[in-house]
Amino acid sequence: MSRWDPYAEDRLREAALELFLEHGYENVTVAEITERAGLTRRSFSRYFTDKRDVLFAGSEQLPVVLARSVRNAADTLTPFEALLTALVDVAGGLADQAPLAVQRRAVVRASPELQERGRTKFAAVIDAVADALRDRGTTESHATLLAEVGVAIFRTAFERWTDRPDDMDLPTRIREAAAEVAAGLGAVDFTALPAPDATTAHG
Amino acid sequence: MSRWDPYAEDRLREAALELFLEHGYENVTVAEITERAGLTRRSFSRYFTDKRDVLFAGSEQLPVVLARSVRNAADTLTPFEALLTALVDVAGGLADQAPLAVQRRAVVRASPELQERGRTKFAAVIDAVADALRDRGTTESHATLLAEVGVAIFRTAFERWTDRPDDMDLPTRIREAAAEVAAGLGAVDFTALPAPDATTAHG
Repeated sequence: MSRWDPYAEDRLREAALELFLEHGYENVTVAEITERAGLTRRSFSRYFTDKRDVLFAGSEQLPVVLARSVRNAADTLTPFEALLTALVDVAGGLADQAPLAVQRRAVVRASPELQERGRTKFAAVIDAVADALRDRGTTESHATLLAEVGVAIFRTAFERWTDRPDDMDLPTRIREAAAEVAAGLGAVDFTALPAPDATTAHG
Repeated sequence: MSRWDPYAEDRLREAALELFLEHGYENVTVAEITERAGLTRRSFSRYFTDKRDVLFAGSEQLPVVLARSVRNAADTLTPFEALLTALVDVAGGLADQAPLAVQRRAVVRASPELQERGRTKFAAVIDAVADALRDRGTTESHATLLAEVGVAIFRTAFERWTDRPDDMDLPTRIREAAAEVAAGLGAVDFTALPAPDATTAHG
């Protein structure tokens, strides 16, 4: 049994990201990751189930943490305020993740399999947030809509922040993205859209 | 060679949906679908590549049609107005799809594989719409954010409409969902959200 190494998990993750970026995710084995990290297969199994897990480990916490934060937000907040409060709140805990996130994004973008996995993860976030909003009294369909918009805001904010982490912190990026959607939709002249009668005539 | 049957495609689709709902998507074969429809494997292959294709055939048009409609929207419209105009415009052409859509949704919800496929389809819609918005001069990241919000609005509207097609038509449901997001975000008191300094101290 190897000596306990407090940095083993980080070393494995960094080794995996390096190798994925060098050779492509599909072409890297767990053996190569452990070798690069100077650790054993046994150490690897202590932290990760497989090589895909190295990329996404920790992200299974996001639905749980966000949903809890939505439920705990003050009763006086509107559903959107509770949602944005939760996003900003959780964002505060991600402050050290920008460098890894940029690398991870590059790996995921190069692999359709990983993109699919990423979408599944975000779908779980949407479901958890929608559930939490329903617990606050928001109706079923409205809760899902808000959760989808909230996750879109979070994803955009996260990408902008990881692209240029020194420009603005993640909570500020979340406010920025939310304000963009608010301003964009707020300025829509609904009377300028095609009238229902005119468009249903197509069908 | 069988006689040309103008309804073969519809009959195959209806037979497939019936069987998927009765026995579960995973347990139905193409042979069973063609038998139920009273048609041959050859007829099936004329319209669909495999049984998954029966559920999603036609949906590959959605990114193309939406993107074209965004590009063709009047120059005077804001990005969000162009996007909503495109959604309402395309919705007009879907007026006869409500009954099939309800059945399809029930089948998709029962299968993780099909849910994944559905998410991949919507990701393609988001990409196509974001591209079209960029062609209108919207910046990269803002275009993706708007496209994600637009697709969330469309999905919500589509579900509400197919759940109760007689209450409101799809274009009206799109306006309703867009107005909900606009009102919800418009009412957010951004000063009530946690302050950036307070939250980044978590990280």
